[in-house]
Amino acid sequence: MSKDKKAGTPKDSHYARLRRAHRQRTTTPPASAGLRSCDGTVRLYGLHTVRAVLDNPSRTIHRMLVTRNAAQRLGLGDLSALPFPVELVEPKAIDTLAGADAVHQGVLVEANARVPKSLSALGQASLVLVLDQVTDPHNVGALMRSAVAFGVDALVTTARHSPAESGVLAKAASGALEHIDHIEVRNLANALEELHAAGFYSVGLDSEGPQPLEEALGVKKLALVLGAEGKGLRQKTREIVHALARLDMPGAIRSLNVSNAAAVALYIARSRMQQDVGAQDGS
Amino acid sequence: MSKDKKAGTPKDSHYARLRRAHRQRTTTPPASAGLRSCDGTVRLYGLHTVRAVLDNPSRTIHRMLVTRNAAQRLGLGDLSALPFPVELVEPKAIDTLAGADAVHQGVLVEANARVPKSLSALGQASLVLVLDQVTDPHNVGALMRSAVAFGVDALVTTARHSPAESGVLAKAASGALEHIDHIEVRNLANALEELHAAGFYSVGLDSEGPQPLEEALGVKKLALVLGAEGKGLRQKTREIVHALARLDMPGAIRSLNVSNAAAVALYIARSRMQQDVGAQDGS
Repeated sequence: MSKDKKAGTPKDSHYARLRRAHRQRTTTPPASAGLRSCDGTVRLYGLHTVRAVLDNPSRTIHRMLVTRNAAQRLGLGDLSALPFPVELVEPKAIDTLAGADAVHQGVLVEANARVPKSLSALGQASLVLVLDQVTDPHNVGALMRSAVAFGVDALVTTARHSPAESGVLAKAASGALEHIDHIEVRNLANALEELHAAGFYSVGLDSEGPQPLEEALGVKKLALVLGAEGKGLRQKTREIVHALARLDMPGAIRSLNVSNAAAVALYIARSRMQQDVGAQDGS
Repeated sequence: MSKDKKAGTPKDSHYARLRRAHRQRTTTPPASAGLRSCDGTVRLYGLHTVRAVLDNPSRTIHRMLVTRNAAQRLGLGDLSALPFPVELVEPKAIDTLAGADAVHQGVLVEANARVPKSLSALGQASLVLVLDQVTDPHNVGALMRSAVAFGVDALVTTARHSPAESGVLAKAASGALEHIDHIEVRNLANALEELHAAGFYSVGLDSEGPQPLEEALGVKKLALVLGAEGKGLRQKTREIVHALARLDMPGAIRSLNVSNAAAVALYIARSRMQQDVGAQDGS
């Protein structure tokens, strides 16, 4: 139970950074916050994020900037033994690269951007999350984290009107970026039709949907489709999905933050899938 | 039930001042973001947020800055007929007050801050959400929105290590701030014991909890307790709650963003309560 801390302690500057990060979060900058550079590299930061990058064999790290403290927390050992150049720096040097608002926790790597896959890479997927122009990198990052937690096999986004892989997105994803198959499509309507042809049943979340999500499920292969907050699903998307379904909420507010809605919807989908597997095992 | 009594002695009010000062230092975003000022007013912005403020009779609005476009979208009609001073402005004028990063959508009001209630105000509450030092105003805002959506009767936070009411928090709450009873307590351990005495069963969310949340429920009055991301519940909190329970997730990542975790947990709690009501009706 620490009492009133003096300004300037590490904790205070941590809060100061958090506050700056929150301020940053209120802007929705798909391109400007996208630290993806033209040569296909991204700057990724934060302990969880970099740990996951280090553990992902498909990432090539071009260089790392790390503070002594963060190197210790990541358990990096002998820095000169790492298979990429490492610079031991003060936090300020990372501020400059990550942006002063980034909560980088003392470590940043420059690595190759992940190359989104095409729909043909879906393979044996049974649960797919489809985003219809959700642009906020914080929401998409949090959503990726929930998607990985609930065992989503692939995330499908449109090439346009989706946030680029970036430090902001990766930080919100807290390592999830390294665990999810990301499929990028040019045309969502065509992609949904391809998913249908591959045996997926598609359900679009819509606050005005005619049935609760719980009742729209009960299929082996599910594509759950979410639109951006406020705008919701586009008209074309609403026409193509097999069903529109709502999340029933008893309260005075009937819409959730999009990443919260996704988490609840994925929980419902997962529970139903487990029930169905249980019922099969029992029969 | 005297934990939240007003400070009565000079010494008490001295400590109260210190605590307030501390709270402002650690959790209030900088003045540039346009937040709670010393005189108990807040600057709130965004169409949803301001609409909800206008509809809340317990708010006193001191002044409004609005663009012509936002005034139209809010359906304000004759601005001179409103019971508070209104300035028709260009967006930039609001940037200056709200902070350049704030997505104010052309409207900002200065209003009285809501006065948090004490635990004795709980009344007939049956579902309470308790936050153990969750400090991020975006997360707390999104969490309030989910809490209102799922019919939570009251949100309990600690006076210290919780974000103050602010434009950032209110924007993330998307109007929910006006719909939730907010209870502020000095000491969470004491508050939990008071809740127990009032018949609440308390369940702390913990990724290492011995049972899944679904199995920890089945009680009439539930207090769901969440800790901050990373830190989780404090040791003292873990000792006091009746049960610790986890959200089971099948994927490679086993923790969610705290507002996503809250949304899923509230969905589970609500579903269970409805089942129980259904079972009662059927018996």
